[in-house]
Amino acid sequence: MELIDKLKWRYAAKAMNGQTVPQEKIDAVLEAARLAPTSSGLQPFEILVITNPEIKERIKAIAWNQSVVTDCSHLLVFAAWDTYTEERINNMFDLTNEVRGFKNEGWENYRQKLLAAYPPRPAEENFIHAAKQAYIAFGLAIAAAAFEGVDSTPMEGFDPAALDEILNLKEKGLKSVLLLPLGYRDAAKDWLVNLKKVRKSKENFVTELV
Amino acid sequence: MELIDKLKWRYAAKAMNGQTVPQEKIDAVLEAARLAPTSSGLQPFEILVITNPEIKERIKAIAWNQSVVTDCSHLLVFAAWDTYTEERINNMFDLTNEVRGFKNEGWENYRQKLLAAYPPRPAEENFIHAAKQAYIAFGLAIAAAAFEGVDSTPMEGFDPAALDEILNLKEKGLKSVLLLPLGYRDAAKDWLVNLKKVRKSKENFVTELV
Repeated sequence: MELIDKLKWRYAAKAMNGQTVPQEKIDAVLEAARLAPTSSGLQPFEILVITNPEIKERIKAIAWNQSVVTDCSHLLVFAAWDTYTEERINNMFDLTNEVRGFKNEGWENYRQKLLAAYPPRPAEENFIHAAKQAYIAFGLAIAAAAFEGVDSTPMEGFDPAALDEILNLKEKGLKSVLLLPLGYRDAAKDWLVNLKKVRKSKENFVTELV
Repeated sequence: MELIDKLKWRYAAKAMNGQTVPQEKIDAVLEAARLAPTSSGLQPFEILVITNPEIKERIKAIAWNQSVVTDCSHLLVFAAWDTYTEERINNMFDLTNEVRGFKNEGWENYRQKLLAAYPPRPAEENFIHAAKQAYIAFGLAIAAAAFEGVDSTPMEGFDPAALDEILNLKEKGLKSVLLLPLGYRDAAKDWLVNLKKVRKSKENFVTELV
């Protein structure tokens, strides 16, 4: 089946049936997110995968009590760097040199450019930029879940500061930005499952400059 | 071929060969972006598709003279709403009622909640939120391009204010956020094509809370 058909099949499931998603499908979703392109290749975010029932319950309480948080199989939390530090930037540039097996002058100049530009900026500006990169990976994860026939529910609706507390993200230098429950839709309980998908028409979405 | 294999195949092509990508593949990429989930379903962004050589040249000049901007087949510009207005919010809620064929009290209450919350906020806060939704669609577009065997080069590296001028985005209430040249890699000219893809290890990317 084509990817587009699978993207039409997907929707933001509002009820899941608690069934466990096989590990290889979870791995495919995580791998898609890991392979996502990011600005300067910095990958300024991490993913927490939560199957622990008590932690899910605590998160549900700070996410408008949405039942998918607990009824899902795996709850993914996308958490972005709270800022860009010299250490974080150097780690990625060093990793690149290690993986590719050589140093390159242009690449080293680019490292110095980022080191001069990012760490001195306000942390909030850096966090917003890092968070945006997490959103790209979020899109790839959603595509991969659909491709695997796994339901996912993109969620911004939670208290990020409270979630950071629950997951001790502050001490890791991370801030939560997105939730993605993964599981299987519970069609009998989901008011949304039979409603038509609504999107702007292509005419109202795309402008061609030929 | 699996989606993950295609995501491993993809990379940010630094040189493209000017070959035209078939319209059905461009349509698949645009459709993936159109189908992307967005916060409250508002789809607060549009895509401009540029094949006009003169416009591409002008954009290249404000995008660090990166050759993919002109050597690509189709240049996609993701442009987000400059703010959330009552009219824009109402349009999407009205469209939903029209497509689904009924009014729902919960949905209408949610409309009022957004109308009370979003338009009074600073435009910059709304724009950042809208831009993030464009990043999700950007991720889906990148996945779809890879799935179709089309190269894409995610780009934040351009002068957004200058691009808004070139494309008259201000009068449309839009601000450019991302570029995505689509085309085919020119392996002979691309210094990046044979270098290994670099990503953090899964151990440094994923934390499981079981």
